Amino acid sequence: MNNLLILIECQDGVGLVANITRILALHQLNIIAMREFVDESENKFFTRIACSGIVEDEAILEQELLRILLKEAKVTVVAKSEKNIAVLVTKEFHCLADLLVRNHFKTLGATVKCVVGNHQTLKEFAEKLNVPFFFVNHEDKNRDLFEQEINNLLATYQLDYIVLAKFMRILSPSFINQYPNKIINIHHSFLPAFIGASPYKQAFHRGVKIIGATAHFVTNHLDEGPIISQQTVHVNHTFNAKEMAIAGREIEKGVLSKALEQVLEDRVFVSGNKTIVFE
Amino acid sequence: MNNLLILIECQDGVGLVANITRILALHQLNIIAMREFVDESENKFFTRIACSGIVEDEAILEQELLRILLKEAKVTVVAKSEKNIAVLVTKEFHCLADLLVRNHFKTLGATVKCVVGNHQTLKEFAEKLNVPFFFVNHEDKNRDLFEQEINNLLATYQLDYIVLAKFMRILSPSFINQYPNKIINIHHSFLPAFIGASPYKQAFHRGVKIIGATAHFVTNHLDEGPIISQQTVHVNHTFNAKEMAIAGREIEKGVLSKALEQVLEDRVFVSGNKTIVFE
Amino acid sequence: MNNLLILIECQDGVGLVANITRILALHQLNIIAMREFVDESENKFFTRIACSGIVEDEAILEQELLRILLKEAKVTVVAKSEKNIAVLVTKEFHCLADLLVRNHFKTLGATVKCVVGNHQTLKEFAEKLNVPFFFVNHEDKNRDLFEQEINNLLATYQLDYIVLAKFMRILSPSFINQYPNKIINIHHSFLPAFIGASPYKQAFHRGVKIIGATAHFVTNHLDEGPIISQQTVHVNHTFNAKEMAIAGREIEKGVLSKALEQVLEDRVFVSGNKTIVFE
Amino acid sequence: MNNLLILIECQDGVGLVANITRILALHQLNIIAMREFVDESENKFFTRIACSGIVEDEAILEQELLRILLKEAKVTVVAKSEKNIAVLVTKEFHCLADLLVRNHFKTLGATVKCVVGNHQTLKEFAEKLNVPFFFVNHEDKNRDLFEQEINNLLATYQLDYIVLAKFMRILSPSFINQYPNKIINIHHSFLPAFIGASPYKQAFHRGVKIIGATAHFVTNHLDEGPIISQQTVHVNHTFNAKEMAIAGREIEKGVLSKALEQVLEDRVFVSGNKTIVFE
Repeated sequence: MNNLLILIECQDGVGLVANITRILALHQLNIIAMREFVDESENKFFTRIACSGIVEDEAILEQELLRILLKEAKVTVVAKSEKNIAVLVTKEFHCLADLLVRNHFKTLGATVKCVVGNHQTLKEFAEKLNVPFFFVNHEDKNRDLFEQEINNLLATYQLDYIVLAKFMRILSPSFINQYPNKIINIHHSFLPAFIGASPYKQAFHRGVKIIGATAHFVTNHLDEGPIISQQTVHVNHTFNAKEMAIAGREIEKGVLSKALEQVLEDRVFVSGNKTIVFE
Repeated sequence: MNNLLILIECQDGVGLVANITRILALHQLNIIAMREFVDESENKFFTRIACSGIVEDEAILEQELLRILLKEAKVTVVAKSEKNIAVLVTKEFHCLADLLVRNHFKTLGATVKCVVGNHQTLKEFAEKLNVPFFFVNHEDKNRDLFEQEINNLLATYQLDYIVLAKFMRILSPSFINQYPNKIINIHHSFLPAFIGASPYKQAFHRGVKIIGATAHFVTNHLDEGPIISQQTVHVNHTFNAKEMAIAGREIEKGVLSKALEQVLEDRVFVSGNKTIVFE
Repeated sequence: MNNLLILIECQDGVGLVANITRILALHQLNIIAMREFVDESENKFFTRIACSGIVEDEAILEQELLRILLKEAKVTVVAKSEKNIAVLVTKEFHCLADLLVRNHFKTLGATVKCVVGNHQTLKEFAEKLNVPFFFVNHEDKNRDLFEQEINNLLATYQLDYIVLAKFMRILSPSFINQYPNKIINIHHSFLPAFIGASPYKQAFHRGVKIIGATAHFVTNHLDEGPIISQQTVHVNHTFNAKEMAIAGREIEKGVLSKALEQVLEDRVFVSGNKTIVFE
Repeated sequence: MNNLLILIECQDGVGLVANITRILALHQLNIIAMREFVDESENKFFTRIACSGIVEDEAILEQELLRILLKEAKVTVVAKSEKNIAVLVTKEFHCLADLLVRNHFKTLGATVKCVVGNHQTLKEFAEKLNVPFFFVNHEDKNRDLFEQEINNLLATYQLDYIVLAKFMRILSPSFINQYPNKIINIHHSFLPAFIGASPYKQAFHRGVKIIGATAHFVTNHLDEGPIISQQTVHVNHTFNAKEMAIAGREIEKGVLSKALEQVLEDRVFVSGNKTIVFE
């Protein structure tokens, strides 16, 4: 008996839950866990239903559900999830290592198909853990060409998500638009504070008593995409910018891994510029 | 248009959610928020459904729901909740004051009908905030008589919950059995560590680096009832037992208020010796 | 045998600690706890030394210490600290109540001499707890006059600090300049995020997963003064702006009380636009 | 100009700081950071002083300091710290991987000389990251022999600390006594709760709302040695014991790495059954 995941986004209305769960009951599907949310500002209904039971053809179930739902509904029945990701990096190891260790021990919930770096720093480590590493130099070419090379590499895999694990280049809108809600970035501040470059230097100069990290989907607006997860940690007057960066590593890797886990378990929906996370 | 809360506990089975939500749809009730949980070890289903809509007679809706549910189901339809509580105290002010301030400014979600103390210390404060205070001395009598006096006082109110806000006397089983899952205690440790007397002294002698507080329902087994909420805070080698107690006050009052809020909003179910908290 | 607190700020140099502690040893003062910090960017040395022992004349000890210190040194010997504060409020009760409860039970570390409000909302509560409340209406007058009235009230007390406990008016530079590093504000965001009005609305629209609170000294630059303490709490997609504000209350009152405690215990030094907090 | 670390433990007395810092000033050593603590119950003084300056012979400075200190003083002058550790493991990867990744990227503050496992599970991973792995089977022999084999392996290295990174065998007193305050264990609960085997199962059955992890020095009393660092994380009714264990991994690896970092930076002193941690 398999587990099934049913993901629905549609316009809100009376009787939605009854109609949806009636269909599931007709298929003898037993609801294990169900979460729903209505975004009132957008009048949209979101649900994630985990069931146990057998469905011969997921496409038929999807069609049955679409038939009873209000307009522009989006239904996904996930029978089994084997997701693939690529990771883009620069020089910092901590986020990549956390992902590759989980990948190595099969606790990531996805397979890391490749790592792409604009420096060679992390090549040896990735390869030690049997993940292909591609070096794409950004120095001798314009951004279009740089991104084209990355795109060509990524195109050779069936990727579900692209993770920017401390990738320190800004991607162009034309690159980002190819992967809507599919690129996840870790920013080393509690957004919206300290947008842009050198957030720890900014934090040091402001004299803050907490620093943070934010995992978010990447949109055309730098550091302004839908936030998936955030975490903070206390610092004090004895921390300089470099020591803040070291303290920040722990929450950066934690928050990125947690956000990715939630995304890979299909717990994250995007509504406007916000996320709904059914933890 | 009123808000309605539907609380259900019953044996688990296929189609439960469909059957329940169909009844609600027939009444034109719109589900605003729904949470459910199956305790697999007990094969029990729990749900809390917040709806908007109008029901003329809640008892009829309860009957309709009971008819479609599996054996020994418990259904409660809450149209409007005006709850009453009593608070038992000894000498420490911080938890009581937090509750009485919320009571005064009408953000508690209940009315504090009275405070009962086995010392007079907090009488003046309670009365300043217009809450009756009753002094019941424990010194000159046996526990039965002491508890009988308290019972007589409490019996004059229609109480939903009794809160032990740093009440430092142990209540007898016969007292507790009168109020199953209705007495909420704050214990000044992260249970099950440091059960019993002087947890901060125990914590100091053990040299712990975190201290905690636990809000729980009171059962016959001292400090072993179902836990509702817990919180911890870091300490270090510079804290003696008294300083730990001072640091602990902040989380004690926070965790008690949070637990009480969840109980008063009907978010807490008891299953065996555990709680389900639909936050 | 009294406890003595010695606070020193001066230019940094070799042998400072030896020279200072030699003077203390000559007075037979026993060091209980000593904290020091060198702000390298400003080449400034800060220390807070708690001693036990007896000093007949604190002024003489101050002079002896000044003689051995480098230029522009600032030395304060605190034999006994009985501080007075005033609290400015608007309508929200939670921060004020937390302070007044501590004041009532003598655990604040200072006496609240008066509360000044630009609304009458909190008058009854303050007076119940025996603290004078002065209503200064801002509606029928310009800011100069409004602040003049407040100043006249404050001038009747010997105040050490002025606490803005959710006081929703912006104070003028001329007002602020009278009380350098003496006005403490609670801002309802993790600064520097969400400066200015309605931070919870800003937080809601940005879709953040944490909200925060910041206690800081007030300077001429709105919400940009030296930060004393910050705290954050997790929220999720189910929180609207109002619910964020309610969740924020708990950390606002906690962070303000903690910051004030540290200030009142002379643990906070200001260096440039930052604080040094010897916790 | 090197950095120097001076660590002192001795009986408490008046003038200690003055006497110590005078010696340092005579050597033209500039104090960068100084922390001290008096354990009043044991009348013991502890200090950690970070200096900048040059000392030709650390032994001479130690002698000079010992001469002015009270009886049974312990003085250590650390000019440069290159520490070596061994890690003992069973099957779980998360703590070991965190240490080996830091080791690989030279941010651990020590060199992992070898990993010893009573299962082969982690052999491949350790070797990929160029750390020797020794398999010592516990199944076919008594504990004395098992420990003797481990001892023989460890004896081939100059080890400063032995880290038990989820090593699931109980070590004998005779083994432990060879390494006083040199063996660091991670226990998967907030001690003293859930001592012994299967703390997550214990936590699940108790229905706690927080789980924790504790790093401590190992003594003859199981899970009762001096605590170095602790951390907790919230769980709820939806977590079974296995899911608690997964959630616990994050804090286990975090708290072990943090404790080890503090130990390796000579910030941790042991006083009786407690630690002093100069963070």
